[in-house]
Amino acid sequence: MQNLNRRVLLRNRPRGEPLPSDFELVEAPVPTPGAGDVLCRTIYLSLDPYMRGRMDEGRSYTGGTNPALGSVMVGGTVSEVIASRNPAFPEGTFVLGASGWQAYALSSGAGLRKLDARQAPLSTALGVLGMPGMTAYVGLRDIGRPKPGETVVVSAAAGAVGSVVGQLAKLEGCRAVGVAGSEAKCAYVVEELGFDACVNYRAEPLLPALRTACPDGIDVYFDNVGGDVLAAALRLVNLRARIPLCGLISQYNAPEPPPGPNLRPVLVNRVLVQGFIISDHLDRLDDFLRDCTQWVREGRLRYREDVVVGLERAPEAFIGLLRGRNFGKLIVKVGEDPSV
Amino acid sequence: MQNLNRRVLLRNRPRGEPLPSDFELVEAPVPTPGAGDVLCRTIYLSLDPYMRGRMDEGRSYTGGTNPALGSVMVGGTVSEVIASRNPAFPEGTFVLGASGWQAYALSSGAGLRKLDARQAPLSTALGVLGMPGMTAYVGLRDIGRPKPGETVVVSAAAGAVGSVVGQLAKLEGCRAVGVAGSEAKCAYVVEELGFDACVNYRAEPLLPALRTACPDGIDVYFDNVGGDVLAAALRLVNLRARIPLCGLISQYNAPEPPPGPNLRPVLVNRVLVQGFIISDHLDRLDDFLRDCTQWVREGRLRYREDVVVGLERAPEAFIGLLRGRNFGKLIVKVGEDPSV
Repeated sequence: MQNLNRRVLLRNRPRGEPLPSDFELVEAPVPTPGAGDVLCRTIYLSLDPYMRGRMDEGRSYTGGTNPALGSVMVGGTVSEVIASRNPAFPEGTFVLGASGWQAYALSSGAGLRKLDARQAPLSTALGVLGMPGMTAYVGLRDIGRPKPGETVVVSAAAGAVGSVVGQLAKLEGCRAVGVAGSEAKCAYVVEELGFDACVNYRAEPLLPALRTACPDGIDVYFDNVGGDVLAAALRLVNLRARIPLCGLISQYNAPEPPPGPNLRPVLVNRVLVQGFIISDHLDRLDDFLRDCTQWVREGRLRYREDVVVGLERAPEAFIGLLRGRNFGKLIVKVGEDPSV
Repeated sequence: MQNLNRRVLLRNRPRGEPLPSDFELVEAPVPTPGAGDVLCRTIYLSLDPYMRGRMDEGRSYTGGTNPALGSVMVGGTVSEVIASRNPAFPEGTFVLGASGWQAYALSSGAGLRKLDARQAPLSTALGVLGMPGMTAYVGLRDIGRPKPGETVVVSAAAGAVGSVVGQLAKLEGCRAVGVAGSEAKCAYVVEELGFDACVNYRAEPLLPALRTACPDGIDVYFDNVGGDVLAAALRLVNLRARIPLCGLISQYNAPEPPPGPNLRPVLVNRVLVQGFIISDHLDRLDDFLRDCTQWVREGRLRYREDVVVGLERAPEAFIGLLRGRNFGKLIVKVGEDPSV
């Protein structure tokens, strides 16, 4: 056992892409566990894109406040308990925890999960059998809800989340198509992971390549990156497609939000966006007419009409409608109304 | 009864905003009903933003093909049956139908709905008690699912859909906030319809005004317009907000899609977009570990790790991760792994 802990601190909040000088490696004494505590020796530290957000000022992604300058960088870890004053975690126990970017950390035991190295290599608890794998599993199955024969596309397909998404899609009987950033990654995704296709977004125009890879369109787009890949996938979505919005890596380093609607708040706030067209919901006609006719009669639901007289005025009225010139429901009175 | 029908035809497909010359008013003989048909005299024609999409080449919004050049413009109508060879719709019946932009039309009766002028004025069947009202009712209640005390924001708030959305939100016990394009519309929305506030997007910077009008953020944003209003509303959404995406009027006349992700396919295809974070779903941990541990052991779920040795290399590895340089789950090996 070393006598010194090594820790990586957040030194500066990045503007855009982080620089090496935004981090500082320091040495400190290895702490001593108090009553109920354990001392964890870090074996593996996970690095994940979400950490970029934790370097910024303000509220974190998952609530709470981001670390202050001078704090240890946060992160998931696999550790060995090397000193224990907590009977639930005796010395020699392997644990999944959140020691962050440091070689030793104290823990009360809260939030630690024991790991069994005979079940799977310890490092998998940070990847395929850890939060990235679980993100893929829940996001695909519970939100994407793929059906056999559907096409599932995933960005960052060679990454910790994407590689699991595509394989789970294959296990569900879907066509799995990846998007990744090198030939080596695409080859890995197709040849080793068994995806049906993978598009290298750095090597070819994305939209035509994705269209070729998805001859039946896209039913589930599992998004890890946002930006151009999201824009291309949106062009190919089928009726009632599902888009689990899991990450927006392409904009994490951006000092300003991208042009157009910025979907970061959709991700961070777990927002549901649902396109809809009323003709899908005609089974609700009776409910609607019952409630709203009653409310109109009671004066609780008011309305205003903007009535243009004469069919010949329909074109100018319609052009004005698209400019927001009408005030109330725009209606053309074409003929006599004998009921009034 | 006149001897001539008057009809408005689609003459040219607009590039951008429609021009008066894209329409042509023509006269034609009033048709004669065949066996089973009725002749409808148009009283009211509804004009709605969706019609802009029907003027373009290609597939329509709701499936099928858009009208050919030279066709009568499509549209919902309230009509009187003035000649009938269909016993279900005797002469003098008022019907809701889709005669389009013309004074007379034949119908087989399919798709016609009888109207009772004693229940409500006939014209309401095109607005508050018609498709716009039903769009508001279903979109707000079934997709927006507002809870008492929540804040509901709606764009085009003085319009046929928006005016109903806000009033229904009030009936549900919500704070209702509109966005509209003139002082007169905003005054109407607040004073006559009972919204709590309305922002005039043409008169003041939208985001601060909307923030002031929504001190507790936005729980439901019912979008009719897209563009800048959607972008501002996204900045203010609360955790688990819902966004029924009903219309994107701001881009209907645009010859090119807007910058950034274009949500038109989300609307047209009724796509579900759901932001999610795995920490909301920890109840699925046991399912995930059971399934995926098994699949990893069987070799059906593969993984790859990109292991960087040494805590001091974490910063450069993390910077590379955000550039897509890693290949596989990025892990820093901080200390000895005694299990391997």
